Order: sequence, then C-alpha cells, then structure tokens
Amino acid sequence: MRVVAEISLIPVGVGVHLSEYIAECHRVFQDAGLQVELHANGTNIEGEWDDVLQAMKRCHERVHELGAPRIVSNIKLGTRTDREQGLGDTVQRVRQRLP
Amino acid sequence: MRVVAEISLIPVGVGVHLSEYIAECHRVFQDAGLQVELHANGTNIEGEWDDVLQAMKRCHERVHELGAPRIVSNIKLGTRTDREQGLGDTVQRVRQRLP
Amino acid sequence: MRVVAEISLIPVGVGVHLSEYIAECHRVFQDAGLQVELHANGTNIEGEWDDVLQAMKRCHERVHELGAPRIVSNIKLGTRTDREQGLGDTVQRVRQRLP
Amino acid sequence: MRVVAEISLIPVGVGVHLSEYIAECHRVFQDAGLQVELHANGTNIEGEWDDVLQAMKRCHERVHELGAPRIVSNIKLGTRTDREQGLGDTVQRVRQRLP
Repeated sequence: MRVVAEISLIPVGVGVHLSEYIAECHRVFQDAGLQVELHANGTNIEGEWDDVLQAMKRCHERVHELGAPRIVSNIKLGTRTDREQGLGDTVQRVRQRLP
Repeated sequence: MRVVAEISLIPVGVGVHLSEYIAECHRVFQDAGLQVELHANGTNIEGEWDDVLQAMKRCHERVHELGAPRIVSNIKLGTRTDREQGLGDTVQRVRQRLP
Repeated sequence: MRVVAEISLIPVGVGVHLSEYIAECHRVFQDAGLQVELHANGTNIEGEWDDVLQAMKRCHERVHELGAPRIVSNIKLGTRTDREQGLGDTVQRVRQRLP
Repeated sequence: MRVVAEISLIPVGVGVHLSEYIAECHRVFQDAGLQVELHANGTNIEGEWDDVLQAMKRCHERVHELGAPRIVSNIKLGTRTDREQGLGDTVQRVRQRLP
C-alpha cells in the first residue's frame, strides 16, 4: 500500500527554535530512501506504508535522543486504490485548473 | 515507546455518510486490545507505537475493502520520555485548573 | 454557517507542561458562549463560524500574553449544508453501529 | 497578528476527484492578496490573521456553492511574537542544516 504522507513534528520542551529537529527527521526520511519534500508547514513523504511509518517512528526516537522530552506530530496519510498517486500529482492537477 | 494518538479518517468517494467506516476502525482498534475513546472529531487511542500504527494500517485496509477508493487520515502522535502518560492525564490536569 | 471544530494548541518555548495554556483557551471558548468538550488530544467546539474563529484568535492572543513566544495550532473545521450537525451527532451514529 | 498557515480541505460527497475544489480555494486565497504555496498535501498561506481566516471561510462557502454538501478542513496556524516569520523562513533554516 503506497502512501502520500505529511509530517509536522513539534518537539516540546527544547525552546523556540526547532529547525535542528526538523532537519534530523529530514535525514531520517532520506536515509530510508523515501521521496521527501520540505515545505513551510511540514515535510511531504511518499513511499510504501511500512517504510514511511517506520521512518516516522525512527524520527520520534532520534528527536527524543537529541533531547526533546516530549513530541507532538501531526501526520496526514493518503492512500487510494483507484489509481497510482505520487507527490506531484495533486499539485499538477490543481495547477492545470488555474489560469 | 508509548503513544497517545488520535485518528480522524475520511473515506473519499463513498458519499456523505461516514459513520460505517469510523465504526469499522473503532472495531479494529478494540480488536487490537488498544484503549479507544470516540469523540466528535476523531478517535483517541493509547498503546505501544507499533501496536497503534499497525492498527491504523489495518484500519486503512479495512476501509478500502469496504469500498472506499481513497482515504485521507489525519493522525496526531504524542510521545514523551519525561513521564508516563495516559489518555486521561491531560484532561485531568487541565480540569484541575478550571473553576 | 455552523461549524463543528477541534483545536489542538501547542505553545512552543514555555517548557514541557502545557495544561495552563490549554485551560486558558478552554475559558476563552466558554466565555464566548460556545459548546466546549475537552478530550485527550484537543478541544471540540461547536458554534457559528465567526464566533468559533474569533475565539480561536483570542485564544492565540491570550497564550502569547501568558508568555508563549510561539504557538502552533492544529484545527479541524467541519461544515455541512445537507443537515444540521452537533457535537454529539457523529459519536451517536457511530455508537449505534458498535455492538 | 501575522500567521503562517496551511489548509488541507476535503469536500465530502462529491466523489473521488477533488482538484476542482482545491483550485477554487487557491483562487480565493490569491484574490484576497495572500501569499499562497500549493504542495502535495495542502496549501500554505501567509498573511494577517483576519485576512487568512476570512479567506478560509470564503473557501468553505465557495466549495459548498460548487456542490459539496460536507467539508472537512484541517488547518495549521502558526503565530509568534519573538520575530517576524515568513513562508520561506523555516525551509531556509532547515536547509542550512542539511548537507
């Protein structure tokens, strides 16, 4: 089962600057061989369900190891059986409708 | 790693009534032996990370089997290393601060 | 336009304990005369769109005033034109399908 | 109060193809003079709180007018008082930490 996912992870209790932790997760996703897209409100990921979710667990583990006592992640998981989907598909279809 | 989680699953392409699918996920979580709390905007779950995420995968699989060609789930995952946490803890601590 | 909403607010940069801030938002919603339900992963609210969103703004303002330099809120907004909806409706319809 | 926001809107009850509705919201945000970034899992928006939230209401109204009887939106709202923020800031700071 393929999944187009997004993760927005917030380490709690490590102050106001979070880019170090977001970068660490980015590396975890890259090391897992997943397609990764960073944007202003989260990280988009595409891959097999088990690979994506395993990487998200590793991401939580690494951010705790870096010193965060508490983590809240908001994750979006999209799956479909009617056709193949990829990270760029929705963007492309919406753009075709814009002037 | 324990997780306090929430899932809000939306089957797409099966019409406007979704309770059948939400109920099926509820059964999946209960059958997995997880603590489950249904509320107006989603389902709260508590358990070990692997058990919770495995049940969420099973939930997507079952909802596809019931006929939904597309699913979008929004999931919140909270982990912490500073103390044990449970589904009722946050509610209890906030209520103590309310009149 | 009625909305059934959920807010999960995370103050960033104020340490690991967040119940003080969640309680403050709860008071803001109650003072606005909205229906409010606290649960393990957020706060459910029902009301008119403008009243609910105005209260969410007030909630951000109050949490900043209490000392949080940064806030991330995840909000779910459900609207429908096919029938009236209330906070308890989905829960009731799902429960009827459970043994 | 400036806000860096994300909206992921799902019309329910209009079938499996959603790009028409996402494009309509994109136009609403552009017409409101907001900075808008479309990505695979949602739309990022930056602007004043009232402008952004007013546009999100208009977006729900337009999607209902286009025929969707039910809408579920997941929205992320980030505000901060410690410094100015923009849509590209987080991405830039995270990228500096990546090889």
